[in-house]
Amino acid sequence: MDWVVKVGGSLFPENSVKLVKAIFESTEKEVMIVCGGGSFANQIRDYDSQMNFSASANHESAIMCMDIVGRLLADKIPDAEAVFDLNSVKLVSKENKIPILLPSKLMHYLDPLEHSWNVTSDSISCYIAQLLQAKLLIATDVDGIYTRIPSAKDAKLINEISAKKLLSFGETSIDTSLSELLLEFGSNCYVVNGKYPERTLSIINACVDVDNTQYTLVRGD
Amino acid sequence: MDWVVKVGGSLFPENSVKLVKAIFESTEKEVMIVCGGGSFANQIRDYDSQMNFSASANHESAIMCMDIVGRLLADKIPDAEAVFDLNSVKLVSKENKIPILLPSKLMHYLDPLEHSWNVTSDSISCYIAQLLQAKLLIATDVDGIYTRIPSAKDAKLINEISAKKLLSFGETSIDTSLSELLLEFGSNCYVVNGKYPERTLSIINACVDVDNTQYTLVRGD
Repeated sequence: MDWVVKVGGSLFPENSVKLVKAIFESTEKEVMIVCGGGSFANQIRDYDSQMNFSASANHESAIMCMDIVGRLLADKIPDAEAVFDLNSVKLVSKENKIPILLPSKLMHYLDPLEHSWNVTSDSISCYIAQLLQAKLLIATDVDGIYTRIPSAKDAKLINEISAKKLLSFGETSIDTSLSELLLEFGSNCYVVNGKYPERTLSIINACVDVDNTQYTLVRGD
Repeated sequence: MDWVVKVGGSLFPENSVKLVKAIFESTEKEVMIVCGGGSFANQIRDYDSQMNFSASANHESAIMCMDIVGRLLADKIPDAEAVFDLNSVKLVSKENKIPILLPSKLMHYLDPLEHSWNVTSDSISCYIAQLLQAKLLIATDVDGIYTRIPSAKDAKLINEISAKKLLSFGETSIDTSLSELLLEFGSNCYVVNGKYPERTLSIINACVDVDNTQYTLVRGD
């Protein structure tokens, strides 16, 4: 597997369908998709603020939301298939289709990450990319990581940042545990706006033109 | 197993917690819980009207919503346990705890029901009750089945109705496929307002006092 692309839940449904279709059509690389839980996971956050669930209940049910979004996304892409395990990932890839991993079973069996809202689908994707020895790209609904919140007037997109420095940023467009994992694994990740599939493709196909492509590279190496 | 109680998604979170706690505290009967998908499943309906997913994608992902609600509900009830299979249902029951079945795996392996929005957690609960040779009670957010929609001024609660007759009603507080299943299995089900746990308990404990308890009995026998 060359790349794990995490498709942010905020891109679901239309933008995530467009992005994965574009990936299928425009790369020869082996790509696996993992989906964020999107509005389903947000609903769990809302219920949690009302009911105060245990960290494990939140963690497990939020991962189930990733399954749901992945299952629905796969339904709209004839060349994609939703799978629950890494063996099926390989089989689907060999058939020149795009595997969309529904991670609940894998995460249930391995249970490698902290149970907390600091760990979201970003960290889960990073963990799975590491398992597969693949590079990680996180497609979200903003252009990357900014010096301040993206809506602030003087916010500037950061082209490259160390995971160590990012740790001091607090909340950004990626979850707070991801930087720790990148440092632990000594790996990197790209954060890209998934609404512009050409940006993701530039990076996946390793023909990044810095003038034209906006993204943030987070370095843990 | 004496009873399968389907706890409607509209009762989640507070009312469903109250209901299952009351069941645990006030009956000696063996009860298993199945949860409706609630607001999570409604979200899939919304996305479906926008994206037109396949019947199987809707069916499977709506069942995953039942898992999520069940997992979260179990978290708030120390004497309940979320389980994925009928062997665990029996083990949990033997420990005098209430099993909450997360039905996605069972339904995936058996796939016994039509894939359509006519089949919801009502029909799934009916199917599982039949597997367990248990009676079925559906706890919802209205008093039972009415002669017209419950909000209509002249709507009257029906105390007992044949599943055959109910087939001609179209949409009611239960899904349209349930009547067919009750006829196929020759079984009955109670439809009860879950906001008043004493009503559910009267029926489960078989001390129904018709004067005090409002419900609808749907007869397929």
